[in-house]
Amino acid sequence: MKIQGKHYRSVWLAENGINVCIFDQTKLPFEISILQLTVPEEAATAIKDMWVRGAPLIGAVAAYGVALAMHRDSSDAALKTAYDTLVITRPTAINLKWALDRICGELTPLAPNARCEAAYRIAGEIADEDAEICHRIGEHGLTIIRDIAARKKPGEPVNILTHCNAGWLATVDWGTALSPIYQAYNEGINIHVWVDETRPRNQGGLTAFELGSHGVPHTLIADNAGGHLMQHGEVDMCIVGTDRTTARGDVCNKIGTYLKALAAKANNVPFYVALPSPTLDFTVWDGVKEIPIEQRAGEEQSHVFGITPEGTRSWVNTAPQGTTCGNYAFDVTPAEYVTGLITERGICDATPAGLKAMFPDMWPSEYEV
Amino acid sequence: MKIQGKHYRSVWLAENGINVCIFDQTKLPFEISILQLTVPEEAATAIKDMWVRGAPLIGAVAAYGVALAMHRDSSDAALKTAYDTLVITRPTAINLKWALDRICGELTPLAPNARCEAAYRIAGEIADEDAEICHRIGEHGLTIIRDIAARKKPGEPVNILTHCNAGWLATVDWGTALSPIYQAYNEGINIHVWVDETRPRNQGGLTAFELGSHGVPHTLIADNAGGHLMQHGEVDMCIVGTDRTTARGDVCNKIGTYLKALAAKANNVPFYVALPSPTLDFTVWDGVKEIPIEQRAGEEQSHVFGITPEGTRSWVNTAPQGTTCGNYAFDVTPAEYVTGLITERGICDATPAGLKAMFPDMWPSEYEV
Repeated sequence: MKIQGKHYRSVWLAENGINVCIFDQTKLPFEISILQLTVPEEAATAIKDMWVRGAPLIGAVAAYGVALAMHRDSSDAALKTAYDTLVITRPTAINLKWALDRICGELTPLAPNARCEAAYRIAGEIADEDAEICHRIGEHGLTIIRDIAARKKPGEPVNILTHCNAGWLATVDWGTALSPIYQAYNEGINIHVWVDETRPRNQGGLTAFELGSHGVPHTLIADNAGGHLMQHGEVDMCIVGTDRTTARGDVCNKIGTYLKALAAKANNVPFYVALPSPTLDFTVWDGVKEIPIEQRAGEEQSHVFGITPEGTRSWVNTAPQGTTCGNYAFDVTPAEYVTGLITERGICDATPAGLKAMFPDMWPSEYEV
Repeated sequence: MKIQGKHYRSVWLAENGINVCIFDQTKLPFEISILQLTVPEEAATAIKDMWVRGAPLIGAVAAYGVALAMHRDSSDAALKTAYDTLVITRPTAINLKWALDRICGELTPLAPNARCEAAYRIAGEIADEDAEICHRIGEHGLTIIRDIAARKKPGEPVNILTHCNAGWLATVDWGTALSPIYQAYNEGINIHVWVDETRPRNQGGLTAFELGSHGVPHTLIADNAGGHLMQHGEVDMCIVGTDRTTARGDVCNKIGTYLKALAAKANNVPFYVALPSPTLDFTVWDGVKEIPIEQRAGEEQSHVFGITPEGTRSWVNTAPQGTTCGNYAFDVTPAEYVTGLITERGICDATPAGLKAMFPDMWPSEYEV
């Protein structure tokens, strides 16, 4: 998507065709800093230290990390070292291992002198495929926005609420939840996005940055505000991303998603979840009971980053001295609160039947539906 | 309640029996700073600049402001000036005008040389009455906590979730929503409080400060977390305060209250609202339709106060440059989501019938129930 009128992906090759460029997302949304990764160890650091984030982007950067390794040394030993170095950077990111298994699996049988070129090609394919999946999610989601826009009076925007950041910064391009929004905007539909701040990590700032850079009208709000807005007809639809969707259609996403889904249901606001099929997890049925919710450091709750009056980036501790802070990273929205799942294949019901019909090739044969 | 083992009210007379002591709440929860007000103009500034906050406390400080005025000059002109100066400090705070009407109404007929002593007596009565109302709210709410505690296994705490700050810092003593909690703690009941951060103004920090000072176990959490906690049985009850309760039982309170009420209903968690009867507003029936919701400056959303790594108090701007921020201050929780209203007279249903039965003297005769 665009920053100051120029199109970017979240990972791309430098002009020399070798180095890998990323945004240092630890500096966003306050500062746009482009980094060039030159060796696989830097790619590993980029993932581990969250210069890049978002499962699809992590997968693509890891694949490019293998390409950087093959450029330096395409031996069997170097390939194995690259895999081992990169796979431990974020142990829970499913796309990371998937991307590394794919690229290393394809490179291993090749003669060492063929590996470098192949590695860049495969990494590029992984990135392109992710951008294509996200673009398709956007096309399907766009049909929903078009329908709402058609019912609006002239001049009235379609108001969409989103939570966390499921934008192009978390994928290679387009994003998941934001892809339909970008495509609606690009098509000239009058839209306005309510951006949840998304405490405690304030990913709403990233979403506001993305939308603002591309030119999409939006308003950053406290996570507390969405219920009031829905109660007063100020939200036409919600779209969020997800980290994991179960066979029953339960959706695990950033903490607070569930509260918005409750408010949407109570106020007849459609609540959609955008997801690439790799995040489907049909090994899980009941997301509320079966998915363990990560608890992270309390400092992420108490310490808030921002720009000081002097213009420097700093954190401040917002909690009284000695306060214990809880920090639950995700929650599960039961399927009954989800209007539909927007996937790269189309929109399906958040039900076993809906998921089985859309993904028969992935559906476990032992499940009766 | 207690700070470092010593009992405080939120407003009290200095040792000389003339000056009025308050906490500078703009420095809380980071710094405990006690101020002495010596003239009515300082009392006006204290209210206007939010050194004190919370409707009941504002009323008491205004009354003491009149006492300070009478100590300096007990003439009719001085009395009128004191009223005029104080009544405009926070135009929407209902207790402010109520307290000033009461004290000035009682002082006006008196001879000037009798006014000073009477003013301190009446201001003291206003403060004492508020503390008494809050104490009674606590006694009634305590019965609910006792019932829950009786069903707990040994060693299991009663988990109570609260939103915003409805504690003793917002009243003269005890607080409203926190009064049952303090009384349960004082009685030795094993309780633990989930404290919502309460974005955008972070009043959860005040609640954490209060509870921590008194010794009540608590955990500060993102506003996003409560739904997840209720879904997993980690909340036994919610108690919140309110700025205004309608004849139908709708509750206007800090933005985000409604989302917690939705989650409570969906998970069979009792949701109680604690309120002193002066905040009942029977002129309003449908709170969602009739109560206008104040929109405040976007900077309150983007700018967050805290302590820097260097130990100084500062704000940081958490939003990307140029981001528009929305700031809705309150929301309305429809009566159907409220399990009960805890008042100084007892606990009643959040229904017209419940309110009429508890407050027949206040119930408008034209309403059919």
